[in-house]
Amino acid sequence: MNQAVLADEVLRKLRFVLSHTSHPGNIGSAARAIRTMGLRRLSLVSPEQFPHIDAHVLAAGADDVLEAAICTNDLPEAIADCSLVIGATARLRGVALEEWSPRVAAARALDAITAGCEVAFVFGNERSGLSNDEIKLCHAAVHIPSDPSYSSLNLSQAVQVIAYEMRMAVLSDAPARPSNRDIPASSVELEGFFEHLASTLRDIDFHKGRSERTIMQRLRRLFLRASLDQRELRVLRGILADAQRMARLARGD
Amino acid sequence: MNQAVLADEVLRKLRFVLSHTSHPGNIGSAARAIRTMGLRRLSLVSPEQFPHIDAHVLAAGADDVLEAAICTNDLPEAIADCSLVIGATARLRGVALEEWSPRVAAARALDAITAGCEVAFVFGNERSGLSNDEIKLCHAAVHIPSDPSYSSLNLSQAVQVIAYEMRMAVLSDAPARPSNRDIPASSVELEGFFEHLASTLRDIDFHKGRSERTIMQRLRRLFLRASLDQRELRVLRGILADAQRMARLARGD
Repeated sequence: MNQAVLADEVLRKLRFVLSHTSHPGNIGSAARAIRTMGLRRLSLVSPEQFPHIDAHVLAAGADDVLEAAICTNDLPEAIADCSLVIGATARLRGVALEEWSPRVAAARALDAITAGCEVAFVFGNERSGLSNDEIKLCHAAVHIPSDPSYSSLNLSQAVQVIAYEMRMAVLSDAPARPSNRDIPASSVELEGFFEHLASTLRDIDFHKGRSERTIMQRLRRLFLRASLDQRELRVLRGILADAQRMARLARGD
Repeated sequence: MNQAVLADEVLRKLRFVLSHTSHPGNIGSAARAIRTMGLRRLSLVSPEQFPHIDAHVLAAGADDVLEAAICTNDLPEAIADCSLVIGATARLRGVALEEWSPRVAAARALDAITAGCEVAFVFGNERSGLSNDEIKLCHAAVHIPSDPSYSSLNLSQAVQVIAYEMRMAVLSDAPARPSNRDIPASSVELEGFFEHLASTLRDIDFHKGRSERTIMQRLRRLFLRASLDQRELRVLRGILADAQRMARLARGD
């Protein structure tokens, strides 16, 4: 599937469900987070206050997401047509669900979407998380691997991490971004450069009796590590040529 | 390296630098974001208001991060001892830096840290991002692959994504590569080398009327990609010194 089609499928079939959210500002921040990652669908289960000005302020321009948000009274209604429901949990509390990292969850969600499924990520109340009844409706859990000594992710930050992994999953199907780099230098071109470098070092009297071999090994390692492209090689050889020209002039050739 | 040791190394050697932050609340949210991912070190370059009650409210318990935060007047001071400085950018504005995804940036940062380097992720002002002068001090850029039609990540959400990728990189527990490399060159040492390189190119009359700026950008990019160590830097500077000596002799000085 090409990347644009895939992104469009994810856009249409993936929803973020925020259940019993206390602070409308968090709904706005979550809208912003999913919108930055190219997503749109938000469902709100019994939000304490919504619509609310704080949601719009924190959405920071992602008002289209808020305006299209679907409100429901309970979670079953919000996920009725979903084939894969993934609940965000701080840790599992005696419920036998598979627990996935955000990366694995995004991959599974993408698999389900490309198979034609509707998919939901579900986030509970800011303080108490998903209730046990809500967790029972989930097909799997996603756990952000936070520091056990301080695992207090803000709701919108958790949404951001999941939305980011969804976007990375979509983009990983993509061909590599064209870079600004030229064609890589070939082995023959590199060896030509190293010979030119070696002769330049002799011309400018760099060694002064020290071992040429050790220095050249070190410089080879350095330049090979940089994976030179052809344009860079031309620049470097131009520098060497000018240094040699100066050495010739110095010798009075 | 085992995972606990690796996590500890990252904790000690990785800093998040927030430059010219306008809203103290964002500093608090960023502190919370890095703390959830097991990180602690925060540097603040000329924050508009700090300390501030909003920072503590939004840190939501991550006050230890705020209290240990280091304030500096400018970016060079904040990153002076860093060998790898990665700037968060919305997109590159004509500056020849390598651009990494958060995942690649985290992998490179972890490589550098296991090699003994100090590493910084740098985030600019909420509205204007990093200035061109600040970007020039970065060795690479990290770009969160947001939706081009709405790429407005909140500062703390951007910090959250990068911190999350660092934690994922640590948890994926790549065995460290042994190397026989010397201590990594620091930011100050690298800038000293680039100045020396620029003056040498002028001395040997390399430019011949062409743009010095383009060539220096290309060479910066090449040498930054190679992650020079101190011994390599000494060899390169020795070569430059000899080329300059030849140029002086050629001029008859």
